[in-house]
Amino acid sequence: MNENTFEQHYDVQTEDRSALLGQRGCVVWFSGLSGAGKSTLANALENYLLSQKRLSFVLDGDNVRRGLCADLDFSQEGRVENLRRVAQVAKLFADAGTVCISAFISPLIASRQLARSIIGEDRFMEIYVSTSLAVCEQRDTKGLYKKARAGEVKNFTGISSPFEAPLNPDIAVDTEQTSVAEAVTQIASLLESRSIFDV
Amino acid sequence: MNENTFEQHYDVQTEDRSALLGQRGCVVWFSGLSGAGKSTLANALENYLLSQKRLSFVLDGDNVRRGLCADLDFSQEGRVENLRRVAQVAKLFADAGTVCISAFISPLIASRQLARSIIGEDRFMEIYVSTSLAVCEQRDTKGLYKKARAGEVKNFTGISSPFEAPLNPDIAVDTEQTSVAEAVTQIASLLESRSIFDV
Repeated sequence: MNENTFEQHYDVQTEDRSALLGQRGCVVWFSGLSGAGKSTLANALENYLLSQKRLSFVLDGDNVRRGLCADLDFSQEGRVENLRRVAQVAKLFADAGTVCISAFISPLIASRQLARSIIGEDRFMEIYVSTSLAVCEQRDTKGLYKKARAGEVKNFTGISSPFEAPLNPDIAVDTEQTSVAEAVTQIASLLESRSIFDV
Repeated sequence: MNENTFEQHYDVQTEDRSALLGQRGCVVWFSGLSGAGKSTLANALENYLLSQKRLSFVLDGDNVRRGLCADLDFSQEGRVENLRRVAQVAKLFADAGTVCISAFISPLIASRQLARSIIGEDRFMEIYVSTSLAVCEQRDTKGLYKKARAGEVKNFTGISSPFEAPLNPDIAVDTEQTSVAEAVTQIASLLESRSIFDV
């Protein structure tokens, strides 16, 4: 027991923020290989939500790996801890009333399962960006697959580190088959079906 | 360099969220001894902001120490890392457009200085809840000062761990001298003077 772990009563609750914003906080959790299209979809989803006057916020390598998790490496252990922290922060953003979008490879079932349990089943949506390794490697937008094949980048998902595909995602999007606009429409429908905007 | 550290372009920026919410994201950072009144003030400030239809979110021991920072202890090192993470998360909440309220003892100048530099001078407001040790110990609402004096709680700020008072806080509130309502009025004026609601 310590000075910082006592339960404190706060009058303003998650429901109050939801009523203020006209939306229920939730988490849209993307997973998929590097180059699969997670950030592209996250960006398009955020654009769509803003056009609908909805508050969203993206957590990704840009704003997490350079800040909150700058102390972590890219070993298996470091990646697991990175995703644990992301899940905890995403939960706080959901509590705050935002549609929080997480865009990390998140290769392990266990990490995604942990995120689901931290955030809560009823407000966790799992989107598997299922673009194949072959296509991702062909795109190689960041030139990293080439480096991974040459052994210059370690622990690279799909090459030298496993990716455990979601078994039962809410939506699977293969960006070779599905346009970004179509995928956003599917995710928007999912948010509606989860009553995120029925406040 | 790794798959997660490339700069990604997102169309929706902090300014877009500010325009949507009609407020600029910022951080109100409380510091002070255990029992000084930080949580009471945070709660009252949140109530006030909600009454003004402003979105706020409190970070405190309840929602951080049990989740994001559940892996950290209360040693000096653990507390410094706790506050580093809080500062990084508060920055994200400010980026998301919320008035983020941080309510931790935050005993060290260095930690508060780090928070200021992470969050940005122009949207960081430091409130020192300056209630004296004598008064906090007399209140002893959680019974922790008694335990600390008996040596049952280690690293207890003010007793067995230092508190470095802010040298130049935006506001200092001694809750023996100032009512909660008065303090909230002062903080609201500070937010106005920082143009948080001029969007």
